[in-house]
Amino acid sequence: MQFLNLRRFKTVNERRQVLEKIKGLSLRNISYYSLDEKIASSRNCENMIGVAQVPLGVAGPIKIKSQTLPPGKGKLKKQDFYIPLATTEGALVASVNRGCKAISDSGGAIVLVEQIGATRGPVFRTSSVRESAELVSWLEGHFNDLSRLAEQTSPHLRLKKMEPQIVGKNVYVRFYFDTGEAMGMNMATFATNSVIQNIEQQTGYRCISLSANFCVDKKPAWLNFIKGRGKRVWAESVIKKEVIEKVLKTTSEKIFEVWLNKCLVGSALSGSLGFNDHFANVLAAIFLATGQDLAHVVEGAVGITMAEIEDKGDLSISVYLPDLMVGTIGGGTGLGTQKEALEITGIKDAGKGGSLTLAGVIGGAVLAGELSLLASLAEGSLAEAHQKLARGVFNFN
Amino acid sequence: MQFLNLRRFKTVNERRQVLEKIKGLSLRNISYYSLDEKIASSRNCENMIGVAQVPLGVAGPIKIKSQTLPPGKGKLKKQDFYIPLATTEGALVASVNRGCKAISDSGGAIVLVEQIGATRGPVFRTSSVRESAELVSWLEGHFNDLSRLAEQTSPHLRLKKMEPQIVGKNVYVRFYFDTGEAMGMNMATFATNSVIQNIEQQTGYRCISLSANFCVDKKPAWLNFIKGRGKRVWAESVIKKEVIEKVLKTTSEKIFEVWLNKCLVGSALSGSLGFNDHFANVLAAIFLATGQDLAHVVEGAVGITMAEIEDKGDLSISVYLPDLMVGTIGGGTGLGTQKEALEITGIKDAGKGGSLTLAGVIGGAVLAGELSLLASLAEGSLAEAHQKLARGVFNFN
Amino acid sequence: MQFLNLRRFKTVNERRQVLEKIKGLSLRNISYYSLDEKIASSRNCENMIGVAQVPLGVAGPIKIKSQTLPPGKGKLKKQDFYIPLATTEGALVASVNRGCKAISDSGGAIVLVEQIGATRGPVFRTSSVRESAELVSWLEGHFNDLSRLAEQTSPHLRLKKMEPQIVGKNVYVRFYFDTGEAMGMNMATFATNSVIQNIEQQTGYRCISLSANFCVDKKPAWLNFIKGRGKRVWAESVIKKEVIEKVLKTTSEKIFEVWLNKCLVGSALSGSLGFNDHFANVLAAIFLATGQDLAHVVEGAVGITMAEIEDKGDLSISVYLPDLMVGTIGGGTGLGTQKEALEITGIKDAGKGGSLTLAGVIGGAVLAGELSLLASLAEGSLAEAHQKLARGVFNFN
Amino acid sequence: MQFLNLRRFKTVNERRQVLEKIKGLSLRNISYYSLDEKIASSRNCENMIGVAQVPLGVAGPIKIKSQTLPPGKGKLKKQDFYIPLATTEGALVASVNRGCKAISDSGGAIVLVEQIGATRGPVFRTSSVRESAELVSWLEGHFNDLSRLAEQTSPHLRLKKMEPQIVGKNVYVRFYFDTGEAMGMNMATFATNSVIQNIEQQTGYRCISLSANFCVDKKPAWLNFIKGRGKRVWAESVIKKEVIEKVLKTTSEKIFEVWLNKCLVGSALSGSLGFNDHFANVLAAIFLATGQDLAHVVEGAVGITMAEIEDKGDLSISVYLPDLMVGTIGGGTGLGTQKEALEITGIKDAGKGGSLTLAGVIGGAVLAGELSLLASLAEGSLAEAHQKLARGVFNFN
Repeated sequence: MQFLNLRRFKTVNERRQVLEKIKGLSLRNISYYSLDEKIASSRNCENMIGVAQVPLGVAGPIKIKSQTLPPGKGKLKKQDFYIPLATTEGALVASVNRGCKAISDSGGAIVLVEQIGATRGPVFRTSSVRESAELVSWLEGHFNDLSRLAEQTSPHLRLKKMEPQIVGKNVYVRFYFDTGEAMGMNMATFATNSVIQNIEQQTGYRCISLSANFCVDKKPAWLNFIKGRGKRVWAESVIKKEVIEKVLKTTSEKIFEVWLNKCLVGSALSGSLGFNDHFANVLAAIFLATGQDLAHVVEGAVGITMAEIEDKGDLSISVYLPDLMVGTIGGGTGLGTQKEALEITGIKDAGKGGSLTLAGVIGGAVLAGELSLLASLAEGSLAEAHQKLARGVFNFN
Repeated sequence: MQFLNLRRFKTVNERRQVLEKIKGLSLRNISYYSLDEKIASSRNCENMIGVAQVPLGVAGPIKIKSQTLPPGKGKLKKQDFYIPLATTEGALVASVNRGCKAISDSGGAIVLVEQIGATRGPVFRTSSVRESAELVSWLEGHFNDLSRLAEQTSPHLRLKKMEPQIVGKNVYVRFYFDTGEAMGMNMATFATNSVIQNIEQQTGYRCISLSANFCVDKKPAWLNFIKGRGKRVWAESVIKKEVIEKVLKTTSEKIFEVWLNKCLVGSALSGSLGFNDHFANVLAAIFLATGQDLAHVVEGAVGITMAEIEDKGDLSISVYLPDLMVGTIGGGTGLGTQKEALEITGIKDAGKGGSLTLAGVIGGAVLAGELSLLASLAEGSLAEAHQKLARGVFNFN
Repeated sequence: MQFLNLRRFKTVNERRQVLEKIKGLSLRNISYYSLDEKIASSRNCENMIGVAQVPLGVAGPIKIKSQTLPPGKGKLKKQDFYIPLATTEGALVASVNRGCKAISDSGGAIVLVEQIGATRGPVFRTSSVRESAELVSWLEGHFNDLSRLAEQTSPHLRLKKMEPQIVGKNVYVRFYFDTGEAMGMNMATFATNSVIQNIEQQTGYRCISLSANFCVDKKPAWLNFIKGRGKRVWAESVIKKEVIEKVLKTTSEKIFEVWLNKCLVGSALSGSLGFNDHFANVLAAIFLATGQDLAHVVEGAVGITMAEIEDKGDLSISVYLPDLMVGTIGGGTGLGTQKEALEITGIKDAGKGGSLTLAGVIGGAVLAGELSLLASLAEGSLAEAHQKLARGVFNFN
Repeated sequence: MQFLNLRRFKTVNERRQVLEKIKGLSLRNISYYSLDEKIASSRNCENMIGVAQVPLGVAGPIKIKSQTLPPGKGKLKKQDFYIPLATTEGALVASVNRGCKAISDSGGAIVLVEQIGATRGPVFRTSSVRESAELVSWLEGHFNDLSRLAEQTSPHLRLKKMEPQIVGKNVYVRFYFDTGEAMGMNMATFATNSVIQNIEQQTGYRCISLSANFCVDKKPAWLNFIKGRGKRVWAESVIKKEVIEKVLKTTSEKIFEVWLNKCLVGSALSGSLGFNDHFANVLAAIFLATGQDLAHVVEGAVGITMAEIEDKGDLSISVYLPDLMVGTIGGGTGLGTQKEALEITGIKDAGKGGSLTLAGVIGGAVLAGELSLLASLAEGSLAEAHQKLARGVFNFN
């Protein structure tokens, strides 16, 4: 039988049936779903034949005792949040759950969120370094015009700033956009496209590429680490000595030792941008549950966990996530299960500030994950936990 | 109403119903699934309340005209592969699909796969640099013993090599394991745990942490880039001039220019480990569809895309993925939709060599994604495609 | 005989004689010098016993046809510059010399210099992330006060800006200073010290360290690459096809191929911050000759070389040095040979703008070095040149 | 007067006099030297016109109580070493001297040296990934032949190993050479050249460049950090509590705090490869004094300093330098002052093992420098010391 490109077929069922026939398969799980096929197949996924189902668990609640938003955005009130996590990695939900308990039993976490914005970094080509300098001057002199143009592409978008970088005949420009509650890469792309066309027309310099890895989208990069991207998030908690003993079965001293020699020295030795335990695990699970773009986990995985033994034997622990690309509208956030998962965290109707709240909750969840894994490693129980799980006798609490 | 930790409740339905009550929600989509709840809730996801559904599309087929496996593993025959992609990012499947067409119309892709192995990197503590050197000597002298120990933990695991690194009183050791068709992190963890206990007993030196970010698991790191992790994959195709014009609507020269100034110079300027276009997008979608650990996308995103204009105007394009952590058994690979997705790629029953084949297909899919996006950027159509998509008038072909 | 700490002895001669006696040596070369011993031994070098003599050669002249200074600093007129190079590495001066000839024969180089400033990055300690945010707000609200304080420490110093970075209880602050014609690290240190004391008094937060590797002084770092330090310099020249053939004995195509696969792909593969050929060689030789701080070569070595084949077969080549810490007063610039070397480049009396001119000349010299080495590699003559040199039959021209 | 390329003139005096005339200068310091002009001008520096004189001081002695060389190379006996430092940076010699005193008063330092070897990394070009794999197989099968060829180029050189890396049509190969007591880059270049020619002849694949930044020579790079280059050196000392108080005027706790927040967290935040205080300062001064290649300071600056508070309040401190390119013959090591400086450290006649001893002493000196600067920062005296120095009232002890 001949292999077919499935785009010839117009409905989800047709495609799946053709594929089943070609490959001699029965895709009964892939065909079992409740999401709105029409929307999903036209906006989210071409050649759709069904869905992937991933187990979804809930950790928490985590007590977030104060969430500081950017100036002028107010503060959220003290609140408890459930954390939806879609994952196939046994022990992850249990681990985050344990971290939430330790944090909540110690009074909760403080969260700080800063809006950096979605970025796009095209590259323009001139004929010389001198012309490159002229183009930079031109750009700086026309920022307001470019802003206006960008903002015509969407009522939800604002051009915050731009940072040019000359290297030879190339001028890279990093545009920063405020995209409201959306993660915003599509909006940023459209706005950049409009801005580029204007720059080309006005200056005669050609844009080589709308994206030139100066964004930097979906790749680990020091530029994002240093300047931030999306949202920058800090989360912190002081874990009480007795909670460490009772809930985490270890001590501040041991956790500190693991942190120092793993998250700092170990990461230094291996040339890593992730000075942390496992940001990626928690981010991947929340991103999947809430409809974020999973490739952005790559960026989110960079950042630093900090730990310190306090005077009375308590443990101060915090995380810093410089690059969190998340939103509460657009992308996969409106699909069936994803919408419900957002509601589990308390975010409904994509209201104003929802994406900041989500970022804060993610910060708290990542903090819980770091605390719990550090404690497992300090206690030496990591392997045992996974082994019990493999034998089906894991009883997490 | 008081907030409850859901682990008190024993079934998926109980937990979900309690949560619905607490939060005043109706989670009708999350509750709609066909996967084996008993297995998923005990092995893959604690506190499970249902599933996340993600649209699943199929790109391809991609013609892989030769897949070279490691010495002694034979070669696969010429074959066409469908590529299952679970994603909420519109245009991704269409883009990979277009890349597959261009590659297949040009005769197909060549793929090379090398097995590096799952790695774990614990850290031991001595009392001085001199003792650290002694521990390293001891380790080197007892490799065979440690291998035997490791291999007692699983019939599917083999300790391939170990690389120690001294820094002060710390000895980091990177253990490399062959874990058969499994991605193997759990196996590697159990084996390392056993090895560690023996080293502690025999030498008296304490292991600070079973994982010390010298693995490096789920973080971007030069150590993985340089030494490889999981599988190293190369994929390559020579795209014919007429195919570039007809299918990709651009030219080799334009693609080369975008590649040079984006994937190389742009990534250099931004301090990135990803000298590529969007490995992460394709990896995230395949990983999700086939039950891989999504946090491993972080590692997979590092690597290099190469491009060159051939004499007759054809384009030689290749990708190099130094760090691909994938498997065909274990993790999420046995769940309902994930198993079916693996079957779509032709991998059944987790037979021998399945994980190498999967790695090769992923290499081909990533190559298709790179080619297609580079072409879109070269042609200047990226923004337009997404805009059409947003308006629902996108008609990919 | 007992080993003595030489600081007990007060003069250069005494110390040297004691050391000669202890070690049974005759240090007749070290004792042979003309520099002002009194100044050198009190300001530049404790425990001084004499000098190191390093061969000093001169390359050039290089024609710099336009040097663009920062806005408001004017432009330098077209000028030819000799380049003093102190080195023990045979072939280096010859290589730079050849590059200068190729550049000058092609009409000269264009140079662009931007003043970033000397930076210091102390770290403050608070009690929580929230307090860290408050300290940042305080700093931003008191920038003018801090500027005034900083500027009281020297009439030549100006605080340009500061960039804070929170991670947990730590607040790192990068202070940028304009330090006139001096490289300025000492000035920056004094000013930062004064600012720190004020911050400590006003806020009660303690400064852990005046320098916290957020400067980043004398270490390779992406922070410096991305944000610049000292001076940022671009230099560019279009080398004529016939000059490439006659002077460099190769072709644009071959140089481009070496550049692409070495400076870009090779550096990417090796995780390097130096996407260039050998910035460090040229910088070390000029730094040594002109009295710069040699440890700053570490920072100067990062940066990018760009190459492109022009339509008629000419070669456009440029360098970008993001981090050039140089000055024309202070440090070793006033010592005997160093002052004379600066005069060879035309910089006398440490006049205004001297350090910008020096930075520009260094940019030109680095460009010449890159061009010449790329050509040697392209031609395949590198090894031969060094072999002739070793046999004493090297005849450079 | 017309500008002249000085290579027309054959003697040092002629060139200098012509230059003096052209520029209207009197270069009386540059012309004042004792080194062997004939050797220097033919082997070390083309277009030589004289010398650069740099103040040379001596720190120490430092007690090195045990120096462990690679297996089979024996151990050095307990010994005290003076450290020659050529520098123009006031306070540096004093600082290292203070560190030496604290180390020696605490019983001395332990040093560990490993020979990695000089490396060269050419790049070959094939026609496809598959051919690249074939070339790698060929190389692995012909290692002994290539070794023989390499070793014919010098009786002092041995090819230790080679590591190939495929990326598309490019095959990068890192050759590791043992070059005896020489730093060995020239030898490595000649040997690589010979090997390359043979590979080209035997396989028909072309070498694009003898050096392809896979060496990685004179650039900061993770490849060197992770795999080592030249010599890898560890140095360690346990500083007694009372010595810290008396000599360093601070405490273990304060030093630890500075180290943690500067060398680890600060460097992590700034994307640095230098997790240390100021390796570069000490290396530049010793390299200059002893005739090493100053551009290699760039590589030497990467590495890690470790600190830990011991039970009784002592401080364990160590340094790890993964990439130290030094030798005791060749380069500038035979010149007048440089030879004498090597003799000050006790290295005469370039005897066997001299370069390992030198590497060990450099390790000790770097350790002393780290300890002293950390203490200054902890104590808060850094700025004061430099200010006193600037006023001429600095009295170091």
